[in-house]
Formats: sequence, structure tokens, C-alpha cells
Amino acid sequence: MESKTEQNEWSSGVWAHLTAVRQQSPLVQCITNFVSMDLVANTLLSAGASPAMVHSVVEIPDFTPHIHALCVNVGTLTPDWLPSMKTAAELASHLGKPWVLDPAAVSCSGFRLKACLELIELKPTVIKGNGSEIIALSSASRGQTKGADSSHESTDAIEAAKSLALSSGAVVAVSGAVDIVTDGKQVIGVHNGTKMMQKITATGCSLAGLVAAFLAIDSSRALEATVSAMSVFGIAGELGEAMANGPGSLRMHLIDSLYGLDETTVLKRVNITRLG
Amino acid sequence: MESKTEQNEWSSGVWAHLTAVRQQSPLVQCITNFVSMDLVANTLLSAGASPAMVHSVVEIPDFTPHIHALCVNVGTLTPDWLPSMKTAAELASHLGKPWVLDPAAVSCSGFRLKACLELIELKPTVIKGNGSEIIALSSASRGQTKGADSSHESTDAIEAAKSLALSSGAVVAVSGAVDIVTDGKQVIGVHNGTKMMQKITATGCSLAGLVAAFLAIDSSRALEATVSAMSVFGIAGELGEAMANGPGSLRMHLIDSLYGLDETTVLKRVNITRLG
Amino acid sequence: MESKTEQNEWSSGVWAHLTAVRQQSPLVQCITNFVSMDLVANTLLSAGASPAMVHSVVEIPDFTPHIHALCVNVGTLTPDWLPSMKTAAELASHLGKPWVLDPAAVSCSGFRLKACLELIELKPTVIKGNGSEIIALSSASRGQTKGADSSHESTDAIEAAKSLALSSGAVVAVSGAVDIVTDGKQVIGVHNGTKMMQKITATGCSLAGLVAAFLAIDSSRALEATVSAMSVFGIAGELGEAMANGPGSLRMHLIDSLYGLDETTVLKRVNITRLG
Repeated sequence: MESKTEQNEWSSGVWAHLTAVRQQSPLVQCITNFVSMDLVANTLLSAGASPAMVHSVVEIPDFTPHIHALCVNVGTLTPDWLPSMKTAAELASHLGKPWVLDPAAVSCSGFRLKACLELIELKPTVIKGNGSEIIALSSASRGQTKGADSSHESTDAIEAAKSLALSSGAVVAVSGAVDIVTDGKQVIGVHNGTKMMQKITATGCSLAGLVAAFLAIDSSRALEATVSAMSVFGIAGELGEAMANGPGSLRMHLIDSLYGLDETTVLKRVNITRLG
Repeated sequence: MESKTEQNEWSSGVWAHLTAVRQQSPLVQCITNFVSMDLVANTLLSAGASPAMVHSVVEIPDFTPHIHALCVNVGTLTPDWLPSMKTAAELASHLGKPWVLDPAAVSCSGFRLKACLELIELKPTVIKGNGSEIIALSSASRGQTKGADSSHESTDAIEAAKSLALSSGAVVAVSGAVDIVTDGKQVIGVHNGTKMMQKITATGCSLAGLVAAFLAIDSSRALEATVSAMSVFGIAGELGEAMANGPGSLRMHLIDSLYGLDETTVLKRVNITRLG
Repeated sequence: MESKTEQNEWSSGVWAHLTAVRQQSPLVQCITNFVSMDLVANTLLSAGASPAMVHSVVEIPDFTPHIHALCVNVGTLTPDWLPSMKTAAELASHLGKPWVLDPAAVSCSGFRLKACLELIELKPTVIKGNGSEIIALSSASRGQTKGADSSHESTDAIEAAKSLALSSGAVVAVSGAVDIVTDGKQVIGVHNGTKMMQKITATGCSLAGLVAAFLAIDSSRALEATVSAMSVFGIAGELGEAMANGPGSLRMHLIDSLYGLDETTVLKRVNITRLG
């Protein structure tokens, strides 16, 4: 059982993180898929961050040195986008800036799986996926070729996440009924969020962008920043769903709730536990 | 006059189709335009289907064999997207999977018209457009070069739709004040929907995606599946408009309504008639 | 102090412009960034215009001669999009059709700055940016290389805007707490709008599209058309914000309000002053 003290520490940490994002408004470069650009940008704006959807390889040497964090999402990957992603990731790593890899639908092709494995070589700070994606990546990282099955629950993905965290050096976050975050040793569960969020396209991508914004505040504590971002996004979803009649209105209320989140609500609703 | 019995058959068919989409959650690959990706994906999710915006030609050999239906929309066509569309369409046809062609703004250039004619050669299950688009395609298929006029009402397009259906082998759907669906012999009118839906970008593209999802349930009855999808989308629009203050809120209520549609409402509101 | 008579002239001009857009439904070609396509199209539709997101260079010779105005936005620029922008801009200028340049994030790279300077050579009717963007462009147009700082307030940008207007021959519009519009001689302030609009991605891009639609009505009076568009969009934002709980609902109410704007509201809320 979680001690009252530890729960309070998590809660105050989440609020401190969100407050810092609002105050510092970190510049987050997003090289994300076409479907999600609108919601990712609006999520970051409503959280207080500054999104920048700059993806051309010719602009990265000028632009990326000014960012505070990077988010790379392969959701609509084509070969011509990969050099941008690699160049930005490499530069971010070289400059000590945190970056998040969202291996969206990594199993949909051999090309995409290979691209994600190459991106992992460039040392993402956080890898965020659903259970199937993390299991597929973890297996492939160990040279296994077993295909991913999209029915995996995130809790089943704990071992895969730990293994991937250890082999990659990244914090690994698995979204699901319970979100899992691990650095390979500690395993944290985030119990915020609602199922209907999965009925809105790009909520996963938006969460990855939000994780990048939180990492920008303190990348040396990547596990805690990731947990905070996932809890905040989940709470905004919970508040949104209480007002929603379906995924259309949830999308709107989610953004409003993220924008308006106050300390009392955050402290009351944060639901984080140690799972290992 | 439509018999009460026939109207009841249509209504129960529409509900059966929607129920099957919700239960089976078909995987629908969408190679659609940039403007519509968000709304197409959210429409499919709210209807219970699984959208996949996978468009890279290098991923199609791995991915397309796993889909249940494909939707191709040329709304923001460039030459580099055409090979993906053709490869996916050809593979879908070869594997017996249904696919929908949305010839969005087909008359805007000779390039786009030629591309659509080439795609029609790859045997779409359904071609869905507005009156102008269908008339332009039908004329061009007969070797005529008369330009399309966007003021054509869908009812004026019946002959063009029948002709295109016969020459292409596809079911042809024409959106408009009354939606028309024909296989070249039967002509069905769908009287659901509202005019304000045209004030929201990408509703036509979203309907094409929804038709693909319904085809995934039973592609051997493409006429009925198309009619069902158009009626469901129209009913969601009617319910949405009753709650809306303009196109912004209609967009949201449309998605919520599609998500929440129940049997009583569907049975009461389906409005389908035989026109020939 | 603004005279009552002059304020009334502005108000009735704004309403006349909006009415004409609704009646004539001008066809506005938008070559805009990926993030904004959805909101730009919905903004134009709700204002009564007809958006067309046609961006392929192979379609421009067929399509652009039919448009009434063009909007070019470099928000997600890559080298392969630049020829389309230049070809469309050149053709629009050659055919006497008005076009708007939105130099979104012009300072993010040398490539983007150079691209914008090249586009300005093609004689945009209006250049619309925020203070930082206009200052950066104005400096670069004078051969200065001082970097832009995004903290510039729009009122600080008046001199830069006048200089850019004179050197380019374009009307220059600067969005900010007070919007500034100048042809290099007259300087007009538009005091409509709300701060929360900046928390929604693509509102600036949507405004640029709306300016293009208003220019389509009477491009010989580009200053007045630009002022009208900015006032209308600002008023829609004010009405929206009165109903909103955050940026998510503001986005929806903004579109609804733009769609429903009536004469009484426009005449009451227009807030335009001469600043020089």
C-alpha cells in the first residue's frame, strides 16, 4: 500500500512541474505526424508551453539549438521525414536537450520498426508508447522478431518496458488503463485518465509532446517529469469526461481542463503508485 | 411512395451495419488529404472503427494486407502521393478488400482528373463525390472534356452516377441535399443530413472513411453498406445540428452524436427511398 | 480622439465587407502549413468564403487562374513546398489577384527568412505577421541581420511595419494586443480580439486566410479590407471568449461566432482608430 506521505510527495511534485511549465513556457520542437499536429500544438499551448512544428532538415541546424525539448513521433512516417528526425534527435542529444520518441504504430511495417530502432540509438530521454508498441520495440531490441499484438494491456508490458529502458538508457512510458513509467529499476503506475481518451485521435501524440515540455523543466529527473506529465494529462481527461457527451466534446473539455487546472484539483486527483 | 415495410428494412439494415462496425472495429487505412486527417480519424473512432493513416509507399506491402478496408482521397494530391494511392488500391483490390475513392475537387486540374481516372482503373468498390465531381468523372470516363460546374445538385447527377457506376463497376455515391447511391441499376436516395455540414471542412472526406468502415463489414453488399454509412452520418449531423450554434459546435456534436447513436434514434430517423 | 463619424464609417465598412464575403463566397487558395489547414478552412467556411487547399505545383497553372485570392503561409516550410508558393504567388500577381503572405516564424532559420524575402519580391498585397516577424522581415529587407525577439509588442513594430510597407509595396498587418495595419503612410489600429486567442494554434494563420477572403472583395482598397478582416476575427474572438472556459471551447465558439455575426453586433463592437 502506498504511504500517505509518498502520495503527497508525488502530488506536490506534479503541481510543481506544471507550475514551472506555465512559468517558463519551454519551447518544444515537435516533429510529429500529420494527424496530430493540431492537437499536439493545442495541448502544449493549453499547458503553458510553446510548441514549434518545425520539421525541415534544412532548418534544424538553425532552430534546434534554441529549443528546450524535442518530440519525435513516427505516426505518418515516410522516408523523407526520417533524416529530419535523426538530425534533430542527434543534435538534441549532443546539446544535452531532452527528447521524447513516440514509436506510434511501430509494428505496422519493417521500415517503421527499423526507423525506430535507429532513433533509439540516438538516445531518447523518454520512449512513450502503448503496450503493443513497447513490447514490439523491446523484442526487436533484443533481436527477436515476434510480432506485436495490439491487445496487450499496459500492465503486461512492464517487463518489456524495463528491458527496453535498460537496453536503451531511456525512461520508458507505457500508456494504458494504468500508465507505467520505468527507468529499468523503479516502476511507477499512473492511475489517472479515462478510457474515452482513446476514442480521440492524437491524444497519445499529445501526451508525448506534454512529456517533452515537462522534461524541459528538469531533464535530470526524467522519470518524475514523465510521471507528472502523464498524471496531469490524465487528470485533464478525467475533468473533461465529467463534462463530455462523447469524444467530440471530451477533446474540447480536455484542452480547457488542462488550461484551467488548479492546485487543489491536482493535489486531490493525482493517483500515482510504486509498482516495483 | 415508399412502403412501410421497405422503410423498416432499410432502418434495421442501417442499425445492423452500425452495430457490426462497433463490434468488429474494422481497421480502415486512410490515404487522405492533410486537411481532413484529424476529422476522418475522429469520425472513424467515434463510429467504433480503427483508423490508420498509413500512407508511405514503403509501408504498404507490410501493412495493407492486414486492413479491412481502404479509403483514398485526393484532396491535397501531389505527384509523390499518387504511387502510394495506386499501390494500396491495387493491393486492396488484389486481396479482395473493399476500397473507396473520394475524388475530391477532381476538376481542379488535369493532373488530378487523370489521377482519378487511373485510380478508377484499379476497381474501387465505391466512388463517393459531390454532384460536380461525379459529373466530371463520368464525362471524362466517356472521353468528354466538358468542365464541371460546382453548382450541380446531386439529383441532377443521377444519370452521370449511373453511367459511371456501369463503366467502372463501382457503386457510386453522390452527396448533396439528397444523397444518391447507385450501382448503375438501382438508385437509392438518402434524405438524412443537414446543410450546415457543408460548412465544416472534411465532412465529405469523413463520410468516405465511414463508407469504407461499413464496407469492411460486408463488401458483397456495397450498395447497402454505402447507404447505411451515409444515413448514419446524416443522422449524426441532424442530431448535432439540433444542439449546435454554428459549424464549430456542429463539428463537436456530430462526433458525439455518432458515438452515442442508439437503436431507437436510428430506427426513427433513417430516411431512405428508392429513386429508380 | 477618434471622431464618432469616422468610427461609424469604419463600422459600416467592416459590415459591408463581411456581407460581401458572405454573398460572393470568394474562392481562396491556401498554401498553408500542416498545423493550420483545418482551422484555416473552417474559418473561411464560417465566414462564407470557399477555401481550397491546393498546393501542388503541377496543379497551379490549371487552378490558380480560377481563384479570387491566395494565402501563402510558411509555417511548416520545406524546400519542396517553396516552388508551389512562388509559382502561385507569381501567377496571382500576374493575373492581378490579391495575395497574402504570412511569414510564420520567419526567424526560425536562414532558409525561411530567405524564402520570405524571395516571396516578398513577388509582390504580396498584404504581409501579415506578429511583431517579431515583421521586425525581422523589415530589418532583413534593409540588409540588417539583427535577430528577432519574440517579446516585441505589436505597437513597437509600427516603424518596422511602415518601413516594410514602403519597401515592399504591400500593406503590412501586425497582430498583437492592438493590431496594426499600415500602407506605409496611414497607420490604423484594430483593438478587437482577446489574448486567449493566442493560446489556440493557427488563429494567426486563419486570420491571414480571412484577410485574403476580404481582399477578394475589393483588392484596390487593401488597407480597408485588411482592417475589416482583423476586426471581424477579433470580434468573433471576443464573443467566443465570453462563452468559453478555455482555449478548447474558445476555438469552437470563435467559429460559431464568426458564422453568426450580425449587423448590430458588428456595428457595436468594431473598435478601429487611426494611429498615424
